[in-house]
Amino acid sequence: MKICVVGLGIMGGSVCLSLKRAGYKVAGYDISQNILEYALNNAIIDSVAENFENFDLTFVCLPVNACINFINKVKFKNGSIVADICGVKKIIEDSVYKIPRNFKFVGTHPMAGREVSGIKNACAELFDGANIVITKCVNTDIYAVQLIKNVAKAMGFKRVVECSAEMHDKKIAYTSQLAHLVSSAYVKDGEILGCLGFTGGSFQDMTRIAGVDEITWTELYICNSKNLVQKLDMLIRSLTDYKRALEECDENNLKLLLKNGKEIFEDSKTFLNRSEISVTEL
Amino acid sequence: MKICVVGLGIMGGSVCLSLKRAGYKVAGYDISQNILEYALNNAIIDSVAENFENFDLTFVCLPVNACINFINKVKFKNGSIVADICGVKKIIEDSVYKIPRNFKFVGTHPMAGREVSGIKNACAELFDGANIVITKCVNTDIYAVQLIKNVAKAMGFKRVVECSAEMHDKKIAYTSQLAHLVSSAYVKDGEILGCLGFTGGSFQDMTRIAGVDEITWTELYICNSKNLVQKLDMLIRSLTDYKRALEECDENNLKLLLKNGKEIFEDSKTFLNRSEISVTEL
Repeated sequence: MKICVVGLGIMGGSVCLSLKRAGYKVAGYDISQNILEYALNNAIIDSVAENFENFDLTFVCLPVNACINFINKVKFKNGSIVADICGVKKIIEDSVYKIPRNFKFVGTHPMAGREVSGIKNACAELFDGANIVITKCVNTDIYAVQLIKNVAKAMGFKRVVECSAEMHDKKIAYTSQLAHLVSSAYVKDGEILGCLGFTGGSFQDMTRIAGVDEITWTELYICNSKNLVQKLDMLIRSLTDYKRALEECDENNLKLLLKNGKEIFEDSKTFLNRSEISVTEL
Repeated sequence: MKICVVGLGIMGGSVCLSLKRAGYKVAGYDISQNILEYALNNAIIDSVAENFENFDLTFVCLPVNACINFINKVKFKNGSIVADICGVKKIIEDSVYKIPRNFKFVGTHPMAGREVSGIKNACAELFDGANIVITKCVNTDIYAVQLIKNVAKAMGFKRVVECSAEMHDKKIAYTSQLAHLVSSAYVKDGEILGCLGFTGGSFQDMTRIAGVDEITWTELYICNSKNLVQKLDMLIRSLTDYKRALEECDENNLKLLLKNGKEIFEDSKTFLNRSEISVTEL
């Protein structure tokens, strides 16, 4: 199977490295000549992709709009599989299925990442033990999905989560996008000046992702703004409950709010298989 | 030097173990006979403290109100040092200095902890590389502070942060208490059901401390409610800025908000020595 990876940032680079670790040969492509050279010189790719019609499987590891443009512009091999790895899925799916295609599309989202970017931070182990989400709709080819699952297992992923693109975007607004927004908002307090001596694990955890790339994330947020606004609303409402209890020095209410949080958190620790979301060990 | 540790939870137990690792003999005390027996049987303490007048240094590792009651009730050795390790400092300091004492008081707050509790989770390495805050006022004995610093170094702490109890309470409202509240509030979204397959590091970090003990934390929050309400206000305001930008699909504003967060976060990564806060390597 001939594989191509398009877009060699931390994600694309790590896709290449994990594929190579699994024994696959990987052709790579990036608009930056420097990055391509770096990838070749550091054995992150085996060759530079020149004609995209040569490949049986193409991973498009570009930001959302660039991904859509690339898929719309490029001619892929007849019957080949094209998978994107974007952090929002509905907008990509809609764009792909707008017109008939000669390839099989699979939307994926690796549940792994780091607070750094660029090919220099790529590593073969990034996906080890992680989940990969595969989004499906009526147009999805089940054999293409099965192939992606096999490849994902070889790349180190532990579980596959299958659901609709809509469900993915709702869940991800909560689990990832909101977390990144909170982290960014958290640092915007004058108290942060000189606070380093007063920090332990909780502050580090809360702010670890406060420095994410604003261009990538703005695009993801805007593409999923309706879901994200809902999640922000919910969090602001919830924080306001705690604030009110504190203003009123209402010890009992505060205790209840915390106890309730603890219980919900405990309940959330088990995987839930339900009709809209299937979770399978790879 | 004869040392006593009062209150054998995860913090008190870890104080014992880190002191023992450093070669000190430690007497322990807890109102629970079971915990005392566990501590003795597992060599967390060397002996059970019976008369608190026997010790040169007493670490009071109790919750805030229990700590205040204990210090007010017990007779300590003349000229000995008594240190508390509570997460709020002004209320303890005020209570200690309300009447003349025969001991030297030092307020401390180890910047280390875990999301679990109880002596069974105590470990000798809990403070390794961590900061310890020492709060001071006009009544503070500088020799007692120096002794605590020496002991803290032996326990594994890396840095000492010295400031007023007021400054501590302001900073800690931001770095620790707000983080715990956010984590608790974060899980209160129906989206958490079945979201486990969609989580990576950012969700884990955001929610790690959502399950903290509601009794301990309610007490800490109530004792520092004025500062904490201010921090909550600030965060809610900041989150509302992002929400507004998202509602208006204002890409430029969103980018600016994120970029600004990134810059503030980068700036916060260096220790700042200023007149009100001194940070020293131990």
